[in-house]
Amino acid sequence: MKKIAVVLSGCGVNDGSEITEAVAMLVSLSRAGLAYDCFAPNRSQSDVIDHAKGEPAEEKRNILSESARIARGKITALDQLKADDYAAIAFPGGFGVAKNLTTFAKERENARLHDDVKAAVLPFAKAGKPIVAVCAGPLILGLVARELGIKGAEMTFGEGGDPLSKAVESWGQCPVTRPVEQACVDRQHRFVSAPAYMYGDARPDQIFASVDAAIAALRELLG
Amino acid sequence: MKKIAVVLSGCGVNDGSEITEAVAMLVSLSRAGLAYDCFAPNRSQSDVIDHAKGEPAEEKRNILSESARIARGKITALDQLKADDYAAIAFPGGFGVAKNLTTFAKERENARLHDDVKAAVLPFAKAGKPIVAVCAGPLILGLVARELGIKGAEMTFGEGGDPLSKAVESWGQCPVTRPVEQACVDRQHRFVSAPAYMYGDARPDQIFASVDAAIAALRELLG
Repeated sequence: MKKIAVVLSGCGVNDGSEITEAVAMLVSLSRAGLAYDCFAPNRSQSDVIDHAKGEPAEEKRNILSESARIARGKITALDQLKADDYAAIAFPGGFGVAKNLTTFAKERENARLHDDVKAAVLPFAKAGKPIVAVCAGPLILGLVARELGIKGAEMTFGEGGDPLSKAVESWGQCPVTRPVEQACVDRQHRFVSAPAYMYGDARPDQIFASVDAAIAALRELLG
Repeated sequence: MKKIAVVLSGCGVNDGSEITEAVAMLVSLSRAGLAYDCFAPNRSQSDVIDHAKGEPAEEKRNILSESARIARGKITALDQLKADDYAAIAFPGGFGVAKNLTTFAKERENARLHDDVKAAVLPFAKAGKPIVAVCAGPLILGLVARELGIKGAEMTFGEGGDPLSKAVESWGQCPVTRPVEQACVDRQHRFVSAPAYMYGDARPDQIFASVDAAIAALRELLG
């Protein structure tokens, strides 16, 4: 059975992984007959947001401990991920991508992958193994492309014009627009993406359809 | 469009709502064409568990703020719930049911519903409106039955012999065993339940099937 590494970035859209997207990814993988292991960085979140008030909270939380809430405790520190053990790597969205996996939230066009994320994801790209990312997750695809000197890689965000699309464009990549329930497959670079909650008013069942489309494309790429 | 009140108890299986079950419920309702609003108690969690270590953490967290992570901020304090506005009420599982919605974790057979939960749920039972509960959620059904002097109400837990089944049995109710993907419908009392993660080794897609079965039964009860 082919195994996929799923990288979480906390637990909650505003300071971690978007929960519906993360659950959709695990359900969709398991329906597709693909095994998975969950990983997350073992370090402090960039910030903590009270999701009821929509305001920052004066707290510290650990990304691995919070991600473990989604994974029901079955999770490993990201710096332990060995690409050789996995057929692909996958990233749900949420602000955790911009805050905890990359420095995008603070540095925008000058953003970089955090060291543990870079060490985890680059071996997949170099080995031609698929990288799947939904919602804000394709920011990772843009940064991987930039790291490897790739130009013109295709990936979804929303309808364009958002800060994520603008940044990856400035790195020479091609953000594309897809309906929420469709994936974008860049066969040359083995990148799979889908918009999910980049359409903020989508229903949760549409988020599932969006992630399902990405996992169906992954399955086809894996052959 | 009929509207369902979904009651969350935090965010994470060990100290709040089980996340996959909660997401499954929202997705399943939205697929079934049923609208919903999310509610949670606006008070402190009974405890906070580090889900990576499986150990208690020295922290305070608010049930409403944590539940808002699942609901993407669209959530209301439980004491604002008006039963007149909803066709049914639904409870995902997780230890939050035993720790934050009821006193079961500490008081077992002597458990009671917290006041805000009691005030929210009893008007549904008295009006003959369906109450849906999965995994540990049927503990609420057992306590509602006890409050109203009902005997012999049927509800799922796991394969029997667990502390939850024993407690509701001691209250004169009938725990029944169902495969993970089947619901139990007590038509007389309008209780719908399904086991979900009471089978701890179930796959996430089976959790979705379990919750789907409960929501399909709800839809049929609502006519």
